[in-house]
Amino acid sequence: MATILLTGFEPFGGEEANPSWNAVRAVRDSWSGPGTVHAVELPVDFRGLDAVLLDAFERYQPDVVICTGLAGGNADIAVERIAINVKDPGVPDNAGYLPVDEPVDEDGPAAYFSTLPIKPIVARLAEDGIPARVSDSAGTYTCNYVFYRLMRALAELRPHAIGGFVHVPYELAQAVGSVRPRPSMSHETITRAIALAATTALESLEQRLDTAVGLT
Amino acid sequence: MATILLTGFEPFGGEEANPSWNAVRAVRDSWSGPGTVHAVELPVDFRGLDAVLLDAFERYQPDVVICTGLAGGNADIAVERIAINVKDPGVPDNAGYLPVDEPVDEDGPAAYFSTLPIKPIVARLAEDGIPARVSDSAGTYTCNYVFYRLMRALAELRPHAIGGFVHVPYELAQAVGSVRPRPSMSHETITRAIALAATTALESLEQRLDTAVGLT
Amino acid sequence: MATILLTGFEPFGGEEANPSWNAVRAVRDSWSGPGTVHAVELPVDFRGLDAVLLDAFERYQPDVVICTGLAGGNADIAVERIAINVKDPGVPDNAGYLPVDEPVDEDGPAAYFSTLPIKPIVARLAEDGIPARVSDSAGTYTCNYVFYRLMRALAELRPHAIGGFVHVPYELAQAVGSVRPRPSMSHETITRAIALAATTALESLEQRLDTAVGLT
Amino acid sequence: MATILLTGFEPFGGEEANPSWNAVRAVRDSWSGPGTVHAVELPVDFRGLDAVLLDAFERYQPDVVICTGLAGGNADIAVERIAINVKDPGVPDNAGYLPVDEPVDEDGPAAYFSTLPIKPIVARLAEDGIPARVSDSAGTYTCNYVFYRLMRALAELRPHAIGGFVHVPYELAQAVGSVRPRPSMSHETITRAIALAATTALESLEQRLDTAVGLT
Repeated sequence: MATILLTGFEPFGGEEANPSWNAVRAVRDSWSGPGTVHAVELPVDFRGLDAVLLDAFERYQPDVVICTGLAGGNADIAVERIAINVKDPGVPDNAGYLPVDEPVDEDGPAAYFSTLPIKPIVARLAEDGIPARVSDSAGTYTCNYVFYRLMRALAELRPHAIGGFVHVPYELAQAVGSVRPRPSMSHETITRAIALAATTALESLEQRLDTAVGLT
Repeated sequence: MATILLTGFEPFGGEEANPSWNAVRAVRDSWSGPGTVHAVELPVDFRGLDAVLLDAFERYQPDVVICTGLAGGNADIAVERIAINVKDPGVPDNAGYLPVDEPVDEDGPAAYFSTLPIKPIVARLAEDGIPARVSDSAGTYTCNYVFYRLMRALAELRPHAIGGFVHVPYELAQAVGSVRPRPSMSHETITRAIALAATTALESLEQRLDTAVGLT
Repeated sequence: MATILLTGFEPFGGEEANPSWNAVRAVRDSWSGPGTVHAVELPVDFRGLDAVLLDAFERYQPDVVICTGLAGGNADIAVERIAINVKDPGVPDNAGYLPVDEPVDEDGPAAYFSTLPIKPIVARLAEDGIPARVSDSAGTYTCNYVFYRLMRALAELRPHAIGGFVHVPYELAQAVGSVRPRPSMSHETITRAIALAATTALESLEQRLDTAVGLT
Repeated sequence: MATILLTGFEPFGGEEANPSWNAVRAVRDSWSGPGTVHAVELPVDFRGLDAVLLDAFERYQPDVVICTGLAGGNADIAVERIAINVKDPGVPDNAGYLPVDEPVDEDGPAAYFSTLPIKPIVARLAEDGIPARVSDSAGTYTCNYVFYRLMRALAELRPHAIGGFVHVPYELAQAVGSVRPRPSMSHETITRAIALAATTALESLEQRLDTAVGLT
């Protein structure tokens, strides 16, 4: 039975909630299979992220990992294509740390591609009536950071597993009262999107394993 | 018992559905009171609108009228403040008619203000977690046209009644596969917004009537 | 010889300059005819505007009046179609005054249409390579306020004269360093746009006068 | 004397001109030193780009290379940070070729970072009143493609040289008459921006060489 690890972020930037953690938690609580879903809330903290992520890796031994975060201002679900080797958030993280143009890993490659089936996930969401697209930049904040660290950890520790990152829009309530109108999505829709992404990733993994078995 | 008339538009511009009519119909079908809700689908046709609107006026004798339409590209519910005396849609209506800088009514005033409680409606939606705002332009297409005709009809035929116009965003599915990401809202959320607007308008009307009675 | 009055606003909202006044002043300083151009800087002050506007009216006896203001976030020149009878700025003016849903004039009509040749101005700017459009809302701040007061003053005091309002984008330098990218336009382009608007208005006025003479 | 190579693209997508080539050509024609500027127009053709780029490399032996392209919809100058190893344009190039999720180079790394002084270029433009920012995605079209090929060519053929990519907005005239307002910039401003980027890159290269000499 496959194990899925989902992560979301804690709130930041003065917001009271983070729709990514709200969704990931709801997916876990309502998951009826196949496989098992674990959900972990990550701190918006460049220097504290790794410990939480690697602890979850050891504890759950995941086959599929989908990290998620908020992309305020986006109107749709953004399935990220690539994580880049830079920290340059522009604003301090929740611990007050503000790196400028620093590498994620001094000795790491310039970038890692997602190993999730990014186009099939977008297509699956579209079938379900949820607007989504492949995004070519996860930014240079903690979202990109955890994405890069995840892909490196998968490459080094769990090469059979697949993983990647998905950005979600503001939740409906976060768009209430904003000075300029903000695109948003309901919690229910975001949750359904993440669940569909997990299902699609799982099917992709199983197909790959079937193919591999067939080849022997 | 108060009577509420809701209108939505038929599809236009190549879209398969119009979220305004979808929502208005759903509000009617699920309405449990107070009062009675009637829903009418209007054609996107400058020259055919009046007959349908006035027919509904005669048939239902409404106390509250909320006309609704799609504002593609909007991220929130827009409660319109004012209808202006001009037809200048820029693109032909569904009947192929394209007026340019023509008045709605040759002998009408430059504009009519909505008589709905526009700020209380926005506040009520916000309480319910739905992003909304007062908008100062309903455009110069059939939305503004029906809004102007409605306000004139109310002023002349049913001065005790109140009415106005609400623009809704694309439905979720209409944002799927668009070249540029489009803000959107789920059908469920739009429907809840229109129902809350109707409820708020009704309460406002009753307060006014109570006050009027109290004064006699 | 025709007299043209141009107005721009003083800075507000923490900005150091207002591109509308910068442009209007530059048009005056570089104007080589036909006619005479006067430029007046208006305060962002609902209660102080009238005195300055009416003083300019008396002093210059203008035949054409174009009031201008900043529409931060706009990407093009917006030639306004209509001024509405409401003050509802959402933020206080420079004097700290914050009216909410108040009329501009208790006894005034709901709206006044611009008497400038709004479509010909847009076409003239397009010919010159400057993006422009007709806008159907000048907002509910001091821009709309002065526009409404101007149209009323023209109707009552100078019925042969024409006037209206033009919104301009941020100047280039105001978009430097903003958190989210802001559309902007160079001072030179904005100035050229206002000069072309004035020229087009003047030609329109002269055509009308010629026609009127021809009719006698 | 340092040699600078600037590239811009030919028009695509039905546009009559490409502001990147317009600017690059104008920089070359008005350059008064230091160094020599060469300008090359590249085809919007994945399979034809390399020959033109490498031919320019051989002919001009550049010390600084700045490739430029149009990012329609951008409001400011985008100094790109990273080129990624993927071709996925979504629409066919000018030769009708439409790769889907293909690598730029089968055996290349996932990405290359720009070796231009990207933050100093942004700062220099800001000093000059031109809005600019570092961008973390050059897309997956021919812009990213030439950027990736450039960085690989520099790494392999001219390791002492520096290079990168700059995206420019629509030119003013390209925003005229568009259905939705488009941010744009005047040709003069875009040209000044590219000239300042070249100057800043040259100074950065010289500082680096001075430092290297000082170390011996």
